Parts: sequence; C-alpha cells; structure tokens
Amino acid sequence: MNIPQSSKKRVVIIGGGFAGISLAKKLKNKNLQVVLLDKHNYHTFQPLLYQVATGGLEAGSIAYPIRKVMQDCPDFYFRLTSVKEIDADNQKIISEIGDLHYDYLVIATGSKTNYFGNKEIERNSMSMKTIPQSLNIRSLILENFEQAVLTKDAADKNALINFVLVGAGPTGVELAGALAEMKKAILQKDYPDLDIRKMEINLIQSGDRILNTMSEKSSKASEAFLESLGVKIWKNVRVTNYDGRTVTTNSELTFESATVIWTAGVQGAAIQGLSSEALIERVERIRVNEFNQVKGYDNIFAIGDIAAMESDANPQGHPMMAQPALQQGALLGENLVHLIQNQPMKPFLYNDKGSMATIGRNKAVVDLPKYHFSGVFAWFVWMFVHLFSLIGFKNKAVVFLNWVYNYIRFDREGRLIIRPYKKKSFTTFTSDEI
Amino acid sequence: MNIPQSSKKRVVIIGGGFAGISLAKKLKNKNLQVVLLDKHNYHTFQPLLYQVATGGLEAGSIAYPIRKVMQDCPDFYFRLTSVKEIDADNQKIISEIGDLHYDYLVIATGSKTNYFGNKEIERNSMSMKTIPQSLNIRSLILENFEQAVLTKDAADKNALINFVLVGAGPTGVELAGALAEMKKAILQKDYPDLDIRKMEINLIQSGDRILNTMSEKSSKASEAFLESLGVKIWKNVRVTNYDGRTVTTNSELTFESATVIWTAGVQGAAIQGLSSEALIERVERIRVNEFNQVKGYDNIFAIGDIAAMESDANPQGHPMMAQPALQQGALLGENLVHLIQNQPMKPFLYNDKGSMATIGRNKAVVDLPKYHFSGVFAWFVWMFVHLFSLIGFKNKAVVFLNWVYNYIRFDREGRLIIRPYKKKSFTTFTSDEI
Repeated sequence: MNIPQSSKKRVVIIGGGFAGISLAKKLKNKNLQVVLLDKHNYHTFQPLLYQVATGGLEAGSIAYPIRKVMQDCPDFYFRLTSVKEIDADNQKIISEIGDLHYDYLVIATGSKTNYFGNKEIERNSMSMKTIPQSLNIRSLILENFEQAVLTKDAADKNALINFVLVGAGPTGVELAGALAEMKKAILQKDYPDLDIRKMEINLIQSGDRILNTMSEKSSKASEAFLESLGVKIWKNVRVTNYDGRTVTTNSELTFESATVIWTAGVQGAAIQGLSSEALIERVERIRVNEFNQVKGYDNIFAIGDIAAMESDANPQGHPMMAQPALQQGALLGENLVHLIQNQPMKPFLYNDKGSMATIGRNKAVVDLPKYHFSGVFAWFVWMFVHLFSLIGFKNKAVVFLNWVYNYIRFDREGRLIIRPYKKKSFTTFTSDEI
Repeated sequence: MNIPQSSKKRVVIIGGGFAGISLAKKLKNKNLQVVLLDKHNYHTFQPLLYQVATGGLEAGSIAYPIRKVMQDCPDFYFRLTSVKEIDADNQKIISEIGDLHYDYLVIATGSKTNYFGNKEIERNSMSMKTIPQSLNIRSLILENFEQAVLTKDAADKNALINFVLVGAGPTGVELAGALAEMKKAILQKDYPDLDIRKMEINLIQSGDRILNTMSEKSSKASEAFLESLGVKIWKNVRVTNYDGRTVTTNSELTFESATVIWTAGVQGAAIQGLSSEALIERVERIRVNEFNQVKGYDNIFAIGDIAAMESDANPQGHPMMAQPALQQGALLGENLVHLIQNQPMKPFLYNDKGSMATIGRNKAVVDLPKYHFSGVFAWFVWMFVHLFSLIGFKNKAVVFLNWVYNYIRFDREGRLIIRPYKKKSFTTFTSDEI
C-alpha cells in the first residue's frame, strides 16, 4: 500500500463513517501513524440520504472528502480500498490493493441492509445505505414516472407510480414523509398527464407501531403526521416476497409496485478472519468489551454499528445509529493513547441524547431522555441538530439554502436522472401509436 | 408515445439544450401542441461543465429539470427518449419509445465530440459534452491520484498525474485553468505523499495560437495567464494517437498520460433520415436557410449547433455556441406562429454579443464586438454573465455560494468519486508490501 515504515505505532482504521472519522480526528498529533481505509473517498452523512433519494438535496452536500479531514496531519494516510480479510495471527489486513501490517486495528465498517436471506427481495428491491443507492432510488422513481406516462394499461400504470416502503424505523418513516412531499411538490406538477391521486405510498411495519425504538407518544404523533400526508400505514404485516412487481405478505394483502424500498433490517458489515467467539452471526456484529476491544483480541477494536457491546442496559448492544458511533470513536481515540502509555482505559458509557425523526414540512418528533415533543418546534430542533452535525461550513450553507428554497417554493430541484438506474424486472412498454 | 390527438398543430422539438428550451419557452400560450424530446430529463448549462469536472460545482447546480420549464403549459409534453430516425415522407419521427407524427419538426440536437475517425483516441480519451462525462472526468482524475499514491514505478506514477488536453478552444483553455487551480487548491493538500511538482498540465493546439476564435489580444492574454498557472502550452502540434498511455503527435514529441481530455473537435449530432442535400457530411451539421428551415423541407427546422446557416458573413454557419442557439430558438418561436398564420417569417440575423473565457482566479478574457479586455474586471464580467445565464434562482444562488466559498477558502469540495469510472487501459498495481 506504499505506506512508509515509521518508528511510531501504526493504527489502521477500516471505515470512514461517523465512528472512524470521529476516532481519526482524536488521533491527530498523538505520535501515531494513522491509516484510514474506506471504499469511498468521502464520508457520508447518512441521516440525510433520504433527502438525496427524494430530490431535496444534491449528493455533494451530504458528503465530505475524507482526505480533507486528514489534511495537515503528518503521518496520516488515506487509502481507497475494500478490506477483504483480517489476518490477526500476522497482525495484518488483506485488501484489494495489498496487505498492511497494523499495531492496532479498528474495525468501523458500519452496517448494511439485512434481507434476512431472501435473495429475491434483495434483487428486486432498493436499499438506501449509500449515496449511489440513494441516487439509484431517485433515478428509479423518475424513470418509473416517465414510463407511467407512456403506459396505457391501467394496472401497469398504477404499479409504476405506487410505492412500498418496508420497515417503519426512522429511515422508512422519513422516506415516506419525503415521498409524500415529493408527490405534492414535484410529481403532481411535473406530470399533468398522470392522475396523481393514484400514487400510493404504503409503509409496512411488521410490529404494532411505527418508530418502535422511540416513545409511544412519538409513534402516535408520527403516525398522525404521515396519515395527514396521505401515507397508508400497514401495521402487523410482514412482507414475504417481492418479484419485481408484486409484494406478497403473511396475510391476504398484496401490493403491485415497481418501487419497493427495503429498510426493514440492518446487520453489521463484518469482515472475515475473526474468531467465531468474536462474531454474533445472526446480526453479523462484532462482540466488544467496554473498551470496544474485540472479544479475544488485545489490539483489535470495533466501534460504531459493527460493534455490539452487550450489557445489562443494552443486552443486544447499542442502537445502530450515529450517536454511539461518534461517542465510541472519540473515547477510543483517548483509550488508544492510554493503552500505548500503559495507562488504564476508560469504559464506554453511552450518553443517550435522544432520538428524532422528521416527517415533512413543519412535522417532526423528538424524544429527549425525559421529554417527548412533536410538531413545528420539533421540526426546527431536528433541522438545527442536523445542520449543526454536518461536517464542513459549505455543506451546512448549501443544505440550509436548499431547505429554505424548498420550504418557500414548495419545490425540489434535484429531479435529475444523471445516471439511469437499470431495473432488472417489470419493463412493459405499451406505447407505439403515432 | 401516449400523446393525445389535438385540434392544434403539433410542434415536435428534438433536444432540450439552449436552442430547444429557448424555442419551447416562446411557444407558450400560442395555441400549439408542443412535444419536447430529450435523452436526459434535464437541461445542461454546458459552459460550466468544466467546473463540475474539476470539483468546483456539483452537477445539480448546472442542470435544470426540463419538466419544470414546461410546468403550467397546457398541451406541452415532455418525453424522455432518443430519436432514431426522421421519416419525412410520413411526417413522423421514430424513437426508442415509439413513433410520433408532427406538423412541424424542430431539430435541436446540438453537437458531439469529433474524433475525426480515430477510434483509438475515442476509446481511450475523455470527452466533456455532458454531465455524466464531466463526472467521469472528475472520478478518473481522483482515481488516478489514488492509484499514483500506491504506485512505486516513477514512470507509471508520473503518467498517472500527468494531464493532456487536446484542443485549446474555450473548453480546453478553461479546463486547463481549472485543473491548474485544482492542483493548488486540492491535490497538493490532499496528496502530501505525492510530489505534486511532477503533475503536468499540457495543453496541445494544432494551430499557432490558443483561443483562435477570439481576438489575438485575448489569445495572448490567456496564454500568459495559463503560463503563470504552470500550464504547458504546445502550439502547432497535432495529436495523432493515444493508446491509453502514450500520446503521439505529428512531431517527435510524445506524452505519457493516463488522463487525456479531447476537446479538439465538435460535430453536429445529426439524425438519420434527411436527404443528402440537407446534410453537410464532413461536420454532420444540417443545412438551413435564413429561417432555419432545413434545405428541401418546408416543415422541418434545425436550430443551434446542429444548424449550419451558410452566409457570406459565416460561410461555415454560425459558431457552435450558446448565443446563436438561444437567438435562433427565440426567433423560430415567433416564425412558427407567423408561418401558421400565413404571415412572412423574419430572417435570422446573428447578434454577436462577443465571447469570453475564464482561466482561473481573477483571470479571464472578454471580446466584445469593439472592445477586448482581460484580467480581474473581465473575470467579474465572466462570472456575472454566467450566473445571470443560469436558469432558475436556486442554481444561481448555489453556484454563487460555491464560487464565493471556493474563492475565499481556496478550496473545492466536490472531490468525490460517487460513481467510479472504469478506465479500460493502463492499470498497473505495483504495491503489495506490508
């Protein structure tokens, strides 16, 4: 990988998400050689991916170049690659661009979509964990609308403008709200020759309430918000298959849709090579102790979504979201320095700052540890927190400008099919008249 | 194509560039049915493509959704498709999504890159006429730098960070300036482990001056600007081939480069089906009279880059740039109405407002019909004109914000490889050490 040997200890970080970047920043000027590996050359602000998918924001405004984070840090290296395997016996990782020795290894590979083994759903539905995936969703929505305009068969036409979102966690709920606003703001104006009333947004939840990691109050409020936007919520329904056109469920209920977005499950993006006791196979997460040390290893750590720190308070590990990732990354930055200096490490204590979700214009729900609220104020809090959390002044400014514009003009200009998405199934052209 | 029959005359416009959009806007509320066809669902502001390629602007800020232009116009239709052929005998066009009858046909397909028949150059070099192509250039530059970091062989490393721009028209010159600034603003900061002094920007011109469509004064000034930025200008050199690594020329001179951008020629993007007298084969442009009527046809018109209106003042037709396209589109909007009302049409008179090119920070050249100037004031004029010409308030605001940010911070944040570009040749990995 062409990284110089150095007298300093080498820390290799796999992944430039919230956890990896938070750790790298803490390791500046700590007399360590730091190598950060990622398969993208940018950090993604995942909480706003749904706005990229629905045309509200451009991809560039929620991405930040990783090399810029590392600028002006002597002995910091970034390499664009995918890591294939860890060879812990020889203290090295094996990647697409060669091997690399480490003194300390930090796995911060995050999570990926979990289809629970259903290959047909995986092949036919859309996922939204990365920027390219979000842009694919955007392209697919617009391509389906362009195709609907050409389609004479009523059933085909409806399927092309029907949406099924599987999973009503924060991603599914925020996406449902954004789609409902996209319908009003863009689609009904841009496609006057379609009967936009036929466009359905179906949100399917296997449990008996949406946003089930939040308070009951927030669940109820967000449900009311979504219904006021025309979203159809289906609770206690489990999707069993999707062949590219028909969604089948565990009941009689079926849906005809060309656009199914799957947000019903996440799992860790684990790497091969760790011992079996380190891996929780069912969720592909890595077992860590209170110092984020991987079970069975002294010099391998895992932080963020991939790390499952099982405790009495969190028997399954912490929730897979930004806050634990940021906090674990920052603490590990301190702990690595302590470890090298043979000082005791500090155990991780999760500071739950709460959670929130936005449903649309003036509508959000916020759960603080002791207080839950919803509505316009919650919406301002949501915007403020998200703007503030974006890395970089320019991204903050551009996102703010876009939000103001979209709010005032009831519009979104990102309705561009820059890279068409080639869907494998459901292509019917019934138009050939003059 | 599912377009309703109407008692109104149907005007079919092929292409949503400057000419097509300018025409469509003029045809609002003129008692016509208007169908606009384009293979993209957005209008591209081509003069700023080079800033997308070099990370200064995001793609979305120079694109505008075509359906938004057509909003609120009854009996206006947009269809996303490529037109394959014109069947003039039966007054219809044949497209990927079916046939369409026309009463009046307007060809506004613009231009494409001309490789003068050299397939190897076409295969190995980059072109910059569309947004996806600009994004490919951006990805390729960054991918080559990432690969250079990994490469030990000095010759390979140099080839990966060397640039050859073939053709010193406005596109080549502006791109050369932007690359020189990208080198300073981004690359030398982001890649501390590369010796950035080895990065060469070579601008090759077959004639004896650059910007040869502008005044001699502007040629000289822009040459001085480019040289002050470290660009190497090679005049009276003609590129004969490029195999993906070595650029050969008509002299002894060769260049080793993984990134060759070809801006040395354009030709019309002609459509099959017109009579041979209508087509100027050498440049693939369509012969039109002073009303933009295609030679030999009463109800087929061509406007913009594709149209060659040969006259004493412009024996080869007007220059292939935005101004003639905008003016021809607007005039044809009036003339079509006159034609239908059996009134005489007005001949086209080109109002040459001048031309300009920007070379970098504080540096531009402007040729007005009677006055030529360069430097900081020219640069402000250039920015003002381009900002003002962008469609839509939001694009103007976002581009302005980006320019201010890039100027103040000496930075460009668009260094993102969102969609990797797979180059076919020159892949050498020489890194496998630990």
